[in-house]
Amino acid sequence: MDSIDRFDVVIVGAGPAGLMAATWMARTGIKTLLIEKKPGRTLAGHADGLESRTFEILNSFGLGESIWMESNRTIDVCLWSRSRESLRRDSVSPNHIPGLSRFQEATLGQGRIEEHLLNFVRPHANVEIEWETIPISLDISHDKADDLNGYPVELRTKSYVTEADEESRDIRKGPTERIIQAKYLIGCDGAHSWVRKRLDLALEGDHTPNGHWGVLDCIPITDFPDIRKRCIIKSDVGNLMIIPREKKLVRFYIQVSPPIAAKFKADYHPSALMAVLKGILQPYIFETSHIEWSTIYTVGQRLCSTFSVANRVFLAGDAIHTHSPKAGQGMNVSMQDTYNLGWKLSSVLRGVANPELLHTYQAERLPVAERLIAFDRRMCSGICSKDEDTPKHAADKFAKLRSTLSEENSCASGLGVIYGPGLIVAPSLDCDPAASVEKMQSPPPYSKGHLARYITVGGRLASQRVICQSDSRPWHLQDRLVSTGQWHLIIFGGDITDTTQRVRLGQLTESLSHPQSLINSINQSDESPVGSVAAYLVHTAPRERVEFMDLPSPLRPFDKEIGYDYSRVFADNASSGDGCGDAYRGYGISPEGCMVLVRPDQHVAFIGALEDTEALYAFFAR
Amino acid sequence: MDSIDRFDVVIVGAGPAGLMAATWMARTGIKTLLIEKKPGRTLAGHADGLESRTFEILNSFGLGESIWMESNRTIDVCLWSRSRESLRRDSVSPNHIPGLSRFQEATLGQGRIEEHLLNFVRPHANVEIEWETIPISLDISHDKADDLNGYPVELRTKSYVTEADEESRDIRKGPTERIIQAKYLIGCDGAHSWVRKRLDLALEGDHTPNGHWGVLDCIPITDFPDIRKRCIIKSDVGNLMIIPREKKLVRFYIQVSPPIAAKFKADYHPSALMAVLKGILQPYIFETSHIEWSTIYTVGQRLCSTFSVANRVFLAGDAIHTHSPKAGQGMNVSMQDTYNLGWKLSSVLRGVANPELLHTYQAERLPVAERLIAFDRRMCSGICSKDEDTPKHAADKFAKLRSTLSEENSCASGLGVIYGPGLIVAPSLDCDPAASVEKMQSPPPYSKGHLARYITVGGRLASQRVICQSDSRPWHLQDRLVSTGQWHLIIFGGDITDTTQRVRLGQLTESLSHPQSLINSINQSDESPVGSVAAYLVHTAPRERVEFMDLPSPLRPFDKEIGYDYSRVFADNASSGDGCGDAYRGYGISPEGCMVLVRPDQHVAFIGALEDTEALYAFFAR
Repeated sequence: MDSIDRFDVVIVGAGPAGLMAATWMARTGIKTLLIEKKPGRTLAGHADGLESRTFEILNSFGLGESIWMESNRTIDVCLWSRSRESLRRDSVSPNHIPGLSRFQEATLGQGRIEEHLLNFVRPHANVEIEWETIPISLDISHDKADDLNGYPVELRTKSYVTEADEESRDIRKGPTERIIQAKYLIGCDGAHSWVRKRLDLALEGDHTPNGHWGVLDCIPITDFPDIRKRCIIKSDVGNLMIIPREKKLVRFYIQVSPPIAAKFKADYHPSALMAVLKGILQPYIFETSHIEWSTIYTVGQRLCSTFSVANRVFLAGDAIHTHSPKAGQGMNVSMQDTYNLGWKLSSVLRGVANPELLHTYQAERLPVAERLIAFDRRMCSGICSKDEDTPKHAADKFAKLRSTLSEENSCASGLGVIYGPGLIVAPSLDCDPAASVEKMQSPPPYSKGHLARYITVGGRLASQRVICQSDSRPWHLQDRLVSTGQWHLIIFGGDITDTTQRVRLGQLTESLSHPQSLINSINQSDESPVGSVAAYLVHTAPRERVEFMDLPSPLRPFDKEIGYDYSRVFADNASSGDGCGDAYRGYGISPEGCMVLVRPDQHVAFIGALEDTEALYAFFAR
Repeated sequence: MDSIDRFDVVIVGAGPAGLMAATWMARTGIKTLLIEKKPGRTLAGHADGLESRTFEILNSFGLGESIWMESNRTIDVCLWSRSRESLRRDSVSPNHIPGLSRFQEATLGQGRIEEHLLNFVRPHANVEIEWETIPISLDISHDKADDLNGYPVELRTKSYVTEADEESRDIRKGPTERIIQAKYLIGCDGAHSWVRKRLDLALEGDHTPNGHWGVLDCIPITDFPDIRKRCIIKSDVGNLMIIPREKKLVRFYIQVSPPIAAKFKADYHPSALMAVLKGILQPYIFETSHIEWSTIYTVGQRLCSTFSVANRVFLAGDAIHTHSPKAGQGMNVSMQDTYNLGWKLSSVLRGVANPELLHTYQAERLPVAERLIAFDRRMCSGICSKDEDTPKHAADKFAKLRSTLSEENSCASGLGVIYGPGLIVAPSLDCDPAASVEKMQSPPPYSKGHLARYITVGGRLASQRVICQSDSRPWHLQDRLVSTGQWHLIIFGGDITDTTQRVRLGQLTESLSHPQSLINSINQSDESPVGSVAAYLVHTAPRERVEFMDLPSPLRPFDKEIGYDYSRVFADNASSGDGCGDAYRGYGISPEGCMVLVRPDQHVAFIGALEDTEALYAFFAR
C-alpha cells in the first residue's frame, strides 16, 4: 500500500487551462499538484490565437508584456476568392476595433504560452508538477463533500520517468503508482477528458458537420503577397485560412476532401496537405523550407453543460467545449475558464468565502461556452458557405463572414464577456434613480450603473491611463489591478480640492477604516491578500494641489517595514504625450464621482455613489 | 610554463562598460575573454541612473523594454530649500523634454543592468567570462601592431576560485596564472584602472573641489511627501539629493563635513550619514527599515585625454573619466563609450574596415567626456552654491541649477551627442544647394542636411513610428535598427505610386543591386552582417496601393531557407491609435524624399538625394 499524499487542489492536465489554474494556485499559495501525461510542455503546433482579453489576464500576473512582444500581431484580415483561373483579393480590413483594449489579437504557439506560465509557477514550492503521469482512478466521497476541511476526492495516478541512457536513448521507467487525496480537483485534460468520462459526463453536439481540415505550420517560400496577414481564401478547390505566426512561421487551415483526409491519416505525412495548399494558392508559387507541425481535424461543436460534480470536481477548457480552431478561440476561452475558477477556489480554501461562490463558476462560464459554440458555427459556415458565391451575390459574398469576424473582435475577444447578476455581480438599476430607491433598500444590493455610464457591471473594467499621485508615473489603471485574489475598490472622488468632494471622500474612507467595518476587518490580516479589499483613489484635482500626506489614511496604508504604500492614488490629469487625463470621460463618470468594486478577476461587481457604503457592505456580507 | 590562449579581444572589467563591449562581441561572434576581479556581478549600490539614450542602446540589443519595465521613472524633479526651521518645496517640474525619445530618465541598480547584459552574453560560446581574475602584466609588441593578423597584446592573469566547503564556508582557491595573447584589449577597469596605469596614462584634474558626499540606498519610512520624486534640497545643514529607485529603494546623496566623512570611513557604518539625513529632512520624520548600501565619495572631475595606445589597447568608462554621481551620468557615458567602440573593433576584426576606423573612437568620445566633466562641474556648483542663496536672489535661487537640469534632459541624456565630421560622418552642406555643387564633386562626400531638416548628421537617428508594409504592424523605426554591426540605408522614397518617385526609387535600387555595386558586393556574403548594408524603404503612399511583390528586389531580399524578408518596407501612414503617419514631418523630409545612411550604432553618417549614389559609394570607399 502506497502512502497517501494530500493536496488542496489537484489539476489534471498542464495545457493552457491547467497552467492558468496552477498560476492562480501558485500566486495564492494553495498546496497543489499538477499532473500531465506528456513529458513536458507542448513543443510545436496546437493552439496559437491570443485574444486581447487573454493578454490582459496574462498581464495581471506580470506576463502580458513579454508574451505580447514575442507574439505576431494579426492587424489586418484579407478576404480572397478564386474566380476561374485567378485568385483575387476582395478586401483588406482591420482585424480589431480600436480603443477596446491596449492589446490586440495576436498569435503565438501554445507551447510558448505554456513555457511562460510554467516559468511563473516553477519558483512556487506550493505547486508540485508531475509529468508523464496519468490518473487511473477517481472517487468522490459525497458524504465528505460537506466537510470544508475534508479531502473528499481520491485520485490514483501512475507515473513514468523517461531518462536518457548512456547512449542517449530515451528509456522510460516505471510506472509508479500514487494515491492522492484532494479537497478539489480540476479536470483540464482536453477534449477526450479522462476526468469528464469518470464523472459520466459527455460532450454533446455534432461530430463532423463541416468536413475535414488540415493544419500545417511551416516557413513558407512564396510570392503570395499577403502571407504576413491573416487571410481567408474562398475557392472551389477548397477553402483556406492563413494565420501568420511568431518568427517566420505561418499556419494554414486547409479544407480537404475525405479521401485526402484519409490519405493524410494513413501516411501521417503532410505532402497531401501541401498539394492541396499549392492548388488553392495558384497561380502563386508556394514551397516550404521547413514544416514544423501538421495534423487534420474534423470540425465538431460540442458542449458539456455540467461543469462540476459535488462542487468539488470541476471541468474546464476543451473538456467542456470543443469546436473548430478557426477563430483562434480555444486557448483563450480555456484559460479564461480557469482564470474565473482559480481565485474562487483560493478564496474558499483560505476561508474567506463560502463554497456557494463556486457555483458561480458554471453560472458565469456556461453562457460563455454556449456563445463560443454558436459563434464557431457561424464562423465555419461563413468560411465554407458556397450558396452566396454566385454572380448575383458576388458583391457581398463575404457579408456573413464579415459580421462574424467583427463579432470576433468584440464579444469573442473575451472583452465582451459580461457575467450576469448573481452572488458576485450586483445588478444595475439603470432606470430613473428616484424610482429605484425602494428596490435599493432591499437585498440584493443594486449597482448604480448611471454613475459610470461606460463601465458595464459584470464586464471587465476597461483600462484608462492615469497618473500616480506620488511619482507622476503614467499607468494603465488595469495594470494596478494585479491578480492576487484581492478585490479592488476604486474610488472616483472627483476634484478633491473642492470642499464637497473632500468631505464625501472623507466620510467614505472614514467608514472604510472604522474598526467594525467589514472591509477594514478583512484588511487587518497581515497574511494573504486573498479575499481582502484594497482601496484606490482616482481624483480629478490638479495633482500638484494634492498633498499625499493629507489624503485619508486608507488610501496610503502604512507598513512598518516598507513605509507608506505610494501606489494607491492616481490623478486623471493630462500629461505630455502619455495619453492621460481622459479616465473620467472614458468611464462616463461625472464630477460627483462614484465607487467601483472590481473582483479579483477584474470584472466589475458593483457601482455605487460615494455614500453607498451600506450597499457595499451588504454585498460583502453575502 | 603555462600554455598561451589567444583571443581576438580581451576586456578587463565586467562593469557596465566592459559588459557593453562584451555584448557587441557576443552579437558579432568575436572570440573574446572578459576578466573581472570580483566573483560576480555587482549586488548592491554603485551607479543607478539610466538616460533615455542608454535605453535606446540597450533596446538595440533587445534588452530595452525589460529594463525599462523594471526601472523606476523619475518623471518630476522637485526643488526644496530650508529657510530657518521649515523645509519648503520651491518647485516641481518635469524631468524630461517630451518627444526626444520614447524612453525617459529612469533608475535601476547597476547590478540589475549587469545581470541583463550577462544574460545576453552568456549563451554566446565565443565570449569567455573569468571571474575573480586580475591582470598582472601587460605587454604590447609595437612591432607587431601593424600586422592585422598578429596578437601584439600579451596579458598575464591570476585567477582564484571561491567554492563553499562542506560547512558552507567560502574557500578561496588559487591563484592560477594564465598567459593570454590578444589582438585588442579594452580596459574597462574603473577609476583606479590597472590597465591605464600600465599604459602610463593618468586622470588629470582636481581631486576634491566640492567636498564630501555620502551615498545611502535604503527603504525609507518617512512622511516627507516627495520621497518618490527626484528632489534636490538646499539647506544650511547640508545639501541633499533624493533619487527614488526600483522596488521601494531610495538613494540619498548627502553632503557631509570632513569630520563626518572621516567618522564614516573609520566606522564604516551609515549611522553618521543617517544622522545628517534626518537633520536635513526635519521637521519630517525619517527612519529606515533596511539599509542596502552606503559609501562616501569625494567629488573629483578628472579626465584622461588619451583613450588608446598603439591603436590596440583602448580605455573606456571610469578609466578615462571620473566625476560626481549627481547627474546619474557615469554608467550611461561608460556604456556609450564601448557601444561606440564595439562595432568598430568587430568591423576591423572581420576585415570589413580599415584599422584607421578605430581612431574615430577617441575623436568621437573625447569631446563627450570633456562635455561630461564640464557638465558635472556645473551640476555640482549648482547644487552646492550658496552665493545665490540670499534674500535678494531668493526668487531664482535655483536658476543656475534649473538650466543645468534642463541640459541633463537634452544633451547630457546622450540624445544630444553629435559626432563630428570624419571618416564615418559625412559633413553636411546646409547652405545654398547650388553653391555647394562644386564642393560635392570632390571628396569627402558631403551630406545634404536640408533634405531631412530635423535629422542631424552625426547625431543618433530619432525614432518615428511607421507601419510595416507586409503586415501593417506599427513599429518604432529605431527598433528595426538592431545592433548587429550592419549599416542601415533608409530610403525615404515619398509617394511611390507617383511615377516620378517610382522611377527615382527604381534607379537607386537598380544601382544598389548592380553586380559591381559596392553595397551589393558587401551584402552578397552569407556570413556575418558586420559591415554590410541593409536597405529599407519608408514611403508615403497609401499602403493598400503598394504591392509587396512589385517593390524593387533589394527591398525584399530573398533567402531560399526563409523566403522573402518582409521587414524592410514601411509606410508613413496614419493608423488608428498608434501614432503613426508623422515620420516625414518629424524628420523634416519633403515629398521628394532622400536617403539616410545610419551607422551600426544608430548615428547618422550621410544624407543624400535619391540620386546621390556616387557620394554614397565614395563614402564607403573610404
